[in-house]
Amino acid sequence: MTTAAELDAADPLASFRDRFVIEDDLIAYFDGNSLGRLPLATRDRLESFVREEWGRDLIRGWADRWVDLPTVVGDEVGALMGAAAGQTIMADSTSVSLYKLLHTAIDLRPGRSEIVVERAGFPTDRYLVEAVAKARGLDVTFVDDPTDLTQIVSERTVVVVLNHVDYRSGLLLDVATLTNQIHAAGALALWDVCHSVGALPIDLDGAGIDLAVGCTYKYLNAGPGAPAFLYVAEQHLAAARQPIEGWWSAANLFAMGEQYEAAPSMRKMLSGTPPVGGMIAVQEGARLTAEAGTEAIRTKSVALTSFALGLIEAHGLDTVTPRDAARRGGHVTIRHPQARQVTAAATARGVLPDFREPDLIRLGLSPLSTSFVEVEAGVAVLADVISSIG
Amino acid sequence: MTTAAELDAADPLASFRDRFVIEDDLIAYFDGNSLGRLPLATRDRLESFVREEWGRDLIRGWADRWVDLPTVVGDEVGALMGAAAGQTIMADSTSVSLYKLLHTAIDLRPGRSEIVVERAGFPTDRYLVEAVAKARGLDVTFVDDPTDLTQIVSERTVVVVLNHVDYRSGLLLDVATLTNQIHAAGALALWDVCHSVGALPIDLDGAGIDLAVGCTYKYLNAGPGAPAFLYVAEQHLAAARQPIEGWWSAANLFAMGEQYEAAPSMRKMLSGTPPVGGMIAVQEGARLTAEAGTEAIRTKSVALTSFALGLIEAHGLDTVTPRDAARRGGHVTIRHPQARQVTAAATARGVLPDFREPDLIRLGLSPLSTSFVEVEAGVAVLADVISSIG
Repeated sequence: MTTAAELDAADPLASFRDRFVIEDDLIAYFDGNSLGRLPLATRDRLESFVREEWGRDLIRGWADRWVDLPTVVGDEVGALMGAAAGQTIMADSTSVSLYKLLHTAIDLRPGRSEIVVERAGFPTDRYLVEAVAKARGLDVTFVDDPTDLTQIVSERTVVVVLNHVDYRSGLLLDVATLTNQIHAAGALALWDVCHSVGALPIDLDGAGIDLAVGCTYKYLNAGPGAPAFLYVAEQHLAAARQPIEGWWSAANLFAMGEQYEAAPSMRKMLSGTPPVGGMIAVQEGARLTAEAGTEAIRTKSVALTSFALGLIEAHGLDTVTPRDAARRGGHVTIRHPQARQVTAAATARGVLPDFREPDLIRLGLSPLSTSFVEVEAGVAVLADVISSIG
Repeated sequence: MTTAAELDAADPLASFRDRFVIEDDLIAYFDGNSLGRLPLATRDRLESFVREEWGRDLIRGWADRWVDLPTVVGDEVGALMGAAAGQTIMADSTSVSLYKLLHTAIDLRPGRSEIVVERAGFPTDRYLVEAVAKARGLDVTFVDDPTDLTQIVSERTVVVVLNHVDYRSGLLLDVATLTNQIHAAGALALWDVCHSVGALPIDLDGAGIDLAVGCTYKYLNAGPGAPAFLYVAEQHLAAARQPIEGWWSAANLFAMGEQYEAAPSMRKMLSGTPPVGGMIAVQEGARLTAEAGTEAIRTKSVALTSFALGLIEAHGLDTVTPRDAARRGGHVTIRHPQARQVTAAATARGVLPDFREPDLIRLGLSPLSTSFVEVEAGVAVLADVISSIG
């Protein structure tokens, strides 16, 4: 077996690790898919934003730069997902963005009566689907196995909400096949790409995806609470509506006219003043990702997760992550009955995974900032903790 | 007449100006009610947040600090508005927050059929009232004169949405009297305090206000796109619902259970991951405001606006701002047919007011960072520009 050091030496993306702040008190940071590390460029850019843009330019910053950040940065994030310009925008949190898109979907498919969502999908997705369905008088159908929707989606279905990569197991769904199954019933496909954007290529336009939403504080390294993005395919843009019509979604932001008229562009999906510092951090993270390239990132990611799964197996640990690299995203997850205690003990020893109810220890392996040596050392500590607990 | 220099010398808050970055290329910054200046403490705190908290602590920051910022910072902002702890929370933009509270109000007053809003209020308020009323099947009644609601509010009224300080004229409404008029009809009072928080005392609890919303990038100096806050009076908290039910509003954020159960506290008003950097900036701005004291700030604010109005009158200019100090907020507004050109020409000469359609030049006089000498110099330039244009 190739050693971790050899894998690092052969890794064409290895130097990207030097572009991040690497904490010196940790053996391994396995939470880059919960909160990504800080890029040095982002640190510097945020400091110059605060000192020079906000501090010095003040209101003038809005007029000539900040006002366009939702679409400019949105397009840069869109480019990482195979989205042509004009379809992606930075706005609110993922939850608020998803809320908007669910209403958008319902208005695009009048007369249909059901929203489909994974039973085990990310909680906010399920919660919002239930809340919006109730408010709009629709039913919710839960899917246990999202890998085949042919028996699920029907002429009743408005939209199917799917997680590209499962936040627990790391299961990677086949976007093209599932989107085709959804479209065969005339329904819309809404993909939550929180756990895939920045970790692997996504072909939003090519797969004919209708709507998508995702966050930026994971693999895009934009910091805690950084704004989410939402995507509306060009073919739906003219008809798309959203429920939170504020001054930022109006055709003329500063006309402040009596009658609301929605912007014709993706700006119609905005509501209030977007967070400037957050969008700037997203821009830096997106540029770092673009520089490395999503194909190269995916290659490294598969190598990292394969390496981690090999170590997990060698240590005799149980995993819920697919062995088939084509069916998993950027994280691997260990199952252990004392997962909570293992996570706490590992954290105390400088290895930071993520505990997920009820018995999962999730290892996020951020391709740009995680080394193979780090993975090896971290999994060794986890195995040691587990053997001492077990 | 006392000179500007004498007024500055006698100003007990004069030293607070030194706590801000004061741009050296400007004669006068009259846009502190659009985007407040950068406090030095905020600059330093944001830099240490990025370097030490995000960069070093990474995911650990959530566990022991960031997760509570929405309520901790919310309470600090609430304290500036006479709100006891547990009723104010930092969350999304003002628009999203108002959207939530409109739905909250409708659910608190079932069977009623109308929302009342000012015809000339801030656009996002009007737009959202119309959007939510339409979605929920309610009527909208527009008020031309918000200073007396006795003939407007009825047993049909769900909620009245009022701007504490008018964004154009600076008219300051009488919160206690109007809230009593609204309550006499059994309706709810929802106050938009964007243009008053940080500029004058607000007695949310004392006036019996039901719901409030406000932004933090004006007088609280929290930076472009900083998060807004929303307030729900304690008496309504148990019954209050909001439409965007995400994981952050759930009773247990990390349980990620199958069934959504709303948090019993103000956290029920959250949706997705809140912006950490933004909340930290709000906290610094709120602390600076608390240190100065809202009563002292109001005294300085009245002195600044009185001084500015005197200068405006002396220069023979027209204003739409009330002469009675008790009836105006923290800004004064000049009316001039060439307002747009005047604003552009003044900006080119280092004086930054705000143009507002169709003929208004707004002068925001942020009490903590604006000096009387600055006001005098800035109004002189405006008068000179106007005389050369006129």
